[in-house]
Amino acid sequence: MDLKSKEKIKKYNFDSWSEEEDYVVVETPLRIYINNSHFISLMCTPKHMEELALGFLFCEGVIKDYSEIKKINLEENILYIEMDKKVHAYKFKDRAMSSGCCKGSMHISVINQNSLERLDYEGEFSAENIINLMSNFNKHSELFMETGGVHSCVLSDGKDVILFAEDIGRHNAFDKIIGMALKNSVRMDDKIVLTSGRLSSDIIIKAASAKIPIVASHSAATQLALKLAKSLNIAAVGFVRGQKLNVYSCYDRVK
Amino acid sequence: MDLKSKEKIKKYNFDSWSEEEDYVVVETPLRIYINNSHFISLMCTPKHMEELALGFLFCEGVIKDYSEIKKINLEENILYIEMDKKVHAYKFKDRAMSSGCCKGSMHISVINQNSLERLDYEGEFSAENIINLMSNFNKHSELFMETGGVHSCVLSDGKDVILFAEDIGRHNAFDKIIGMALKNSVRMDDKIVLTSGRLSSDIIIKAASAKIPIVASHSAATQLALKLAKSLNIAAVGFVRGQKLNVYSCYDRVK
Repeated sequence: MDLKSKEKIKKYNFDSWSEEEDYVVVETPLRIYINNSHFISLMCTPKHMEELALGFLFCEGVIKDYSEIKKINLEENILYIEMDKKVHAYKFKDRAMSSGCCKGSMHISVINQNSLERLDYEGEFSAENIINLMSNFNKHSELFMETGGVHSCVLSDGKDVILFAEDIGRHNAFDKIIGMALKNSVRMDDKIVLTSGRLSSDIIIKAASAKIPIVASHSAATQLALKLAKSLNIAAVGFVRGQKLNVYSCYDRVK
Repeated sequence: MDLKSKEKIKKYNFDSWSEEEDYVVVETPLRIYINNSHFISLMCTPKHMEELALGFLFCEGVIKDYSEIKKINLEENILYIEMDKKVHAYKFKDRAMSSGCCKGSMHISVINQNSLERLDYEGEFSAENIINLMSNFNKHSELFMETGGVHSCVLSDGKDVILFAEDIGRHNAFDKIIGMALKNSVRMDDKIVLTSGRLSSDIIIKAASAKIPIVASHSAATQLALKLAKSLNIAAVGFVRGQKLNVYSCYDRVK
């Protein structure tokens, strides 16, 4: 499927108009069926759709391992998955609903609800390397260069790019990275994920699900994301721009 | 409720480290109850939460009008709404599931499903004014200036800012604008909405629900958003930056 589409555009530039053609990014529904029942559909960039589904199912606790997938088959934008266990259609998870969330203890309830565990990690990552990885980011994303309409994610050992994914949604790009790692048996519990998107609570929950000890963003972090990161022992790094970055949690993990 | 929170940060800047305090944006769950039953919770910036709920309920077709709300009461981050009609708990809408979506006719199914109508609008907006409105955008957002972590939305008559909203989520900021307009009886069917966020299909669907004839973004648009915009007769304007902008649909609406 095409990732971009040429569209007629009327461009305005300092008082003058022109008609041009330019690329815009394609947005398509990925329809996921498990054991012949519709599970969910996700709006996405039509690339690495199998990996998107795997990462999503993993983060939602539907699968614990790639080996649980007996058969997987993508036909255009419909993905058929076969599994031994019975899976019900996706239910909108109301994470915020857990008790105690108004008393500042929401992160605890979220952790319990998702059976997330505090990570056990003692390694270190270099600030300089994180900056270099982030500055090389867009070179990987031809689609971003051409359309400006996608988020990117990278899995790295702290020096080199191991996996790269892009999607119109920042959550999808993160899910794709996790799905790729699961499919290719790449360890995640000693790696860093870099993302173009903001660090909100749900991104930290995804990292915790995959036991990723450090997440770095080109952009900002929310207070709740930091609260979660601290209690889950995940290093949250934000505003990686130029020669600068901010470490918001697990301060000693970045040197 | 505070909108920002001071956090301890370890900053790296050209080889040297410092410990500082900096603001990060607050992310909180808004729990919405309708007639004493939990309807949905939304993660949001704790400002204009009533308007967020109103806009969300309107775009989801739960209310058609502000007058349907008999009583509304916000206690910290819990919003109690009373209505005459019976409302069931929010169900995750699987818009992408509608039939025909793989054959390029998805926009049609979406339109039918959401009972959206093609807008009837013949007015015009000035490119120069849109550029001026967008360049003044961030002046309104103290929170963005301080935290870099929020999206903003503006409702304008094409010249002046009428309503302004900000939120960690780009959908939320759009919903807040719609909720504010409903609450204050501001017409939307002759106005423009400007947003810092991308124009994806769901943003165009929100605009169509509120009959907003033109949406302009600082950022990119997806192909599906443009397809929808064309069939709903909404002008989609993207990459409003510096002295430039792109018109992607209803080309004659921007002069």
